[in-house]
Amino acid sequence: MSKRIIYECSVKIDDLDFSVLLDDNYCGHSIPSSIHDHPAFEAHFVQTGQYTLQIDRGKLQLSGGTGCVIKPSIYHSVFPEEQDTVKYCFKFYSFSQSTLLSQIMKSEKWKDGIFIYDQISDEMRMMQQILYEFEHRAIGYQMSIDNLFSQLLLTVIRKIIDIRHPKGTPIQDPDNEVLVNVIDEYLYRNYMKNISLSDVAQHLKVSERQVNRLMLNLYGSSFKQKIIQIRLIAAKNMLLQDKHATQAQISEAVGYNDPYYFAKVFKETTGMTPDEFRKASNCSQTTLLLIKQDSNTSI
Amino acid sequence: MSKRIIYECSVKIDDLDFSVLLDDNYCGHSIPSSIHDHPAFEAHFVQTGQYTLQIDRGKLQLSGGTGCVIKPSIYHSVFPEEQDTVKYCFKFYSFSQSTLLSQIMKSEKWKDGIFIYDQISDEMRMMQQILYEFEHRAIGYQMSIDNLFSQLLLTVIRKIIDIRHPKGTPIQDPDNEVLVNVIDEYLYRNYMKNISLSDVAQHLKVSERQVNRLMLNLYGSSFKQKIIQIRLIAAKNMLLQDKHATQAQISEAVGYNDPYYFAKVFKETTGMTPDEFRKASNCSQTTLLLIKQDSNTSI
Repeated sequence: MSKRIIYECSVKIDDLDFSVLLDDNYCGHSIPSSIHDHPAFEAHFVQTGQYTLQIDRGKLQLSGGTGCVIKPSIYHSVFPEEQDTVKYCFKFYSFSQSTLLSQIMKSEKWKDGIFIYDQISDEMRMMQQILYEFEHRAIGYQMSIDNLFSQLLLTVIRKIIDIRHPKGTPIQDPDNEVLVNVIDEYLYRNYMKNISLSDVAQHLKVSERQVNRLMLNLYGSSFKQKIIQIRLIAAKNMLLQDKHATQAQISEAVGYNDPYYFAKVFKETTGMTPDEFRKASNCSQTTLLLIKQDSNTSI
Repeated sequence: MSKRIIYECSVKIDDLDFSVLLDDNYCGHSIPSSIHDHPAFEAHFVQTGQYTLQIDRGKLQLSGGTGCVIKPSIYHSVFPEEQDTVKYCFKFYSFSQSTLLSQIMKSEKWKDGIFIYDQISDEMRMMQQILYEFEHRAIGYQMSIDNLFSQLLLTVIRKIIDIRHPKGTPIQDPDNEVLVNVIDEYLYRNYMKNISLSDVAQHLKVSERQVNRLMLNLYGSSFKQKIIQIRLIAAKNMLLQDKHATQAQISEAVGYNDPYYFAKVFKETTGMTPDEFRKASNCSQTTLLLIKQDSNTSI
């Protein structure tokens, strides 16, 4: 018998916020349903057996190993055909405007408001893992369920819109992928030097304004933000790794001439100075050693 | 050749906040490293070949299919033994106090500060998927990487502490699992009735105070919060599913005698009245239809 599960979680993909709703029809035998529509997407993954999806224009046969997404407001009903039909099913919806959502709605993969596909082994694995998490309630199970739904919806959405692009990139332009690689390569090779926007512009042979516009499109952040991000990760890495490196050495190693300016940027971004970061990390060690002494954790 | 990747993300598991740091040693051939220690955990997953981990007390051989976590501040160094040794490696750290962290540190699975295990197929799959996401930058790739690291760390941590318990539960008590099931069963079967704390107490044959303490431990929320949560999910489900149900009908169906009180609770929790929720859902349909008309999405 299927277990009664009632759950809600949020999934954020780019500019799109989905709510996922599970009712007690989530997993198990398929139950016949009368014809209905609703303003949520509905996803079905058939594990074994088969059932018929009745929609406006006719009937669709879904058998084991088939995935199916029904668009919002499509009238549908379900008839299981075999006793042992087992499926996973859930609804997801978004009420806010989103570019990604409009892309999903416009996809050519929908036929009469239904998207049917096979090769759902990843999806099945995740659906089963979600059920396992519900039943076992091991440590961190709620985070795990939320993560699994995020991954699951992302997998499905990528099949519906079938495009790859970093956030904000013009979708039609395949050159952007090459561009990201060129800029990445340049930044990661040179962040330790005193590079500026104009160096990147020269490297790419375009104007500085174009570089900044490009980077905003490709990464969602400006040259300045991106280079700070890369440098600070490198700095944290050094602070964790090398106990003896001075602030001046680290500052120089990650591309800042002025250690005070480096410390200022570090503090603004992480809330700690480099020294505080290092002390916190040593401190947490001491705490851990102390915690290690007392043996019982009761509530 | 390994690709240079520099990345940082946060992972929250129960009361534990981890930062995950990737440097350009994330994936690929194992590079010899001189002996060092740092206040972060370090995880290694060997795909092929083998290498030797030198620690204080001696040498450890790691071969393909082996996972290894090194505790913070354990001196270690790495020697690859074969040309084709390929591994994944990353660091993670937390500077804040946490019950979960102290449980991890106290685990008996550590031997000389190292935890070695096999059966890492889940971990390998996730590490490879992370690399794939980095290289392909398909839509939603950043969310996907963050999710994958969350799942990966959760998988590893569960192997280190090997306990299952809902948030806040006394770990040593296996009866809690049974209790969660008993309370769940009761709540999900009866939320549509006008049940109170005292009903649950009678059902469990304990005092009301004990029920509330239990529920805070088991769910991290009081009876009142938990029953509202279950009822509102059921209500949203009905609002999405059944266009013609009135607010009074839904209110009654999910266990509220007073539709105005139901609307008040709904508004407090979701920021919309039930009617607004339904209108938003219909509205979003209209919006989607309108969006569908214009064909080009450029930035």
